[in-house]
Amino acid sequence: MDQQSYEKKIVGEKAAEYIEDGMTVGLGTGSTVAFTTKKLAERIKTEGLSIQAVSTSHATSELAKSLGIPLKDLNDVKKIDLTIDGCDEFDPDLNGIKGGGGALLFEKIVAVSSDKNIWVADASKSVRRLGAFPLPVEVLPFGWKHMFGAMEDKGLQPKLRMSGKDPFLTDSRNFILDCHVKEIEDAKSLAKWLNALPGVVENGLFINIADQVLLANNDKVDVITR
Amino acid sequence: MDQQSYEKKIVGEKAAEYIEDGMTVGLGTGSTVAFTTKKLAERIKTEGLSIQAVSTSHATSELAKSLGIPLKDLNDVKKIDLTIDGCDEFDPDLNGIKGGGGALLFEKIVAVSSDKNIWVADASKSVRRLGAFPLPVEVLPFGWKHMFGAMEDKGLQPKLRMSGKDPFLTDSRNFILDCHVKEIEDAKSLAKWLNALPGVVENGLFINIADQVLLANNDKVDVITR
Repeated sequence: MDQQSYEKKIVGEKAAEYIEDGMTVGLGTGSTVAFTTKKLAERIKTEGLSIQAVSTSHATSELAKSLGIPLKDLNDVKKIDLTIDGCDEFDPDLNGIKGGGGALLFEKIVAVSSDKNIWVADASKSVRRLGAFPLPVEVLPFGWKHMFGAMEDKGLQPKLRMSGKDPFLTDSRNFILDCHVKEIEDAKSLAKWLNALPGVVENGLFINIADQVLLANNDKVDVITR
Repeated sequence: MDQQSYEKKIVGEKAAEYIEDGMTVGLGTGSTVAFTTKKLAERIKTEGLSIQAVSTSHATSELAKSLGIPLKDLNDVKKIDLTIDGCDEFDPDLNGIKGGGGALLFEKIVAVSSDKNIWVADASKSVRRLGAFPLPVEVLPFGWKHMFGAMEDKGLQPKLRMSGKDPFLTDSRNFILDCHVKEIEDAKSLAKWLNALPGVVENGLFINIADQVLLANNDKVDVITR
């Protein structure tokens, strides 16, 4: 296991310790939180932990089902106690970019329905300023070229995400435009601008959402609280 | 023909006169603009008008096709010269509510891709203040009950739109929450709030979009310009 995979494993598994008996838990998407999901399944088996989980993607649902974790539809729970998710970047204010895996839309819906959000991150995810990681924006296929043009005019350097020769499709069958902004000067106002653009379903800026970040620091895990 | 249907006919047909040879035309959705579409088909046949049209809904595409109007995908045109659409309400600033027919998402995307937008309206659509007509909000089925709860907390009195015993589905297979606000005090800030709510795909507030409204006034048509 290389250093990054090792870091993903230690923070992912650490996060599972935050889950308490009786909780409704949001399970994010990605390679780091997959370690959380596996560890959670282990705790259910060995400790008899009783929880119910809400998934943020088709991929996570499949993994959770295969591990015997009881899943609920988001519409069938009143609220989520704790959501554990990964991120692609986070800054000192614990604002972040998500959506590298394409699940940003369901992830954001689950996040804002959660009392508490913890992100798990290997060392590479911590940045002084957001934007080096291309910002994913989920757009409707209908008229996407016009949204692309508007983002281009705004200087966001969008690129249509592909999956082989076809556009990548999200779980909601939308497209992703990855914006190569490099340095985002004002994340809040950029998020507002994107939200107001018709055809933009969601953007990957997660502002004021994470309460804590578990960050790998060599062999240990730092807990950063907002 | 009753008075309202008569008004829809005269403004709908009047709007077709604004379409010029060579234009790319956006065709809205609804009973009033259906008169425009039919009149346009007539002009194509009798005057040899050469245009291409972009549709805002499955229903409008079907109508246009049946009338032999050449249709283009929005992604295949650089811009739209003129879009003609209906509205459910408009105020003295020509801001409006749309989405009674459920096509608000594609309608808004087409509208912002258009150089000029004309709305056609019978007398009942003119209001001093928006909100008597329930504001349609298109939301993702995933977690819609949580968006419903947030809108309820905001005092918007949402109601899930039904189609028989099932939720009404938009052309993008989303749900519509009709918000019975009654009087919208600040349409701009409400639109911003809705846009920022994860899971809201689009809202029916069309602000700073219409350039002109053709309004039926008994037997004649008033042209109101922003």
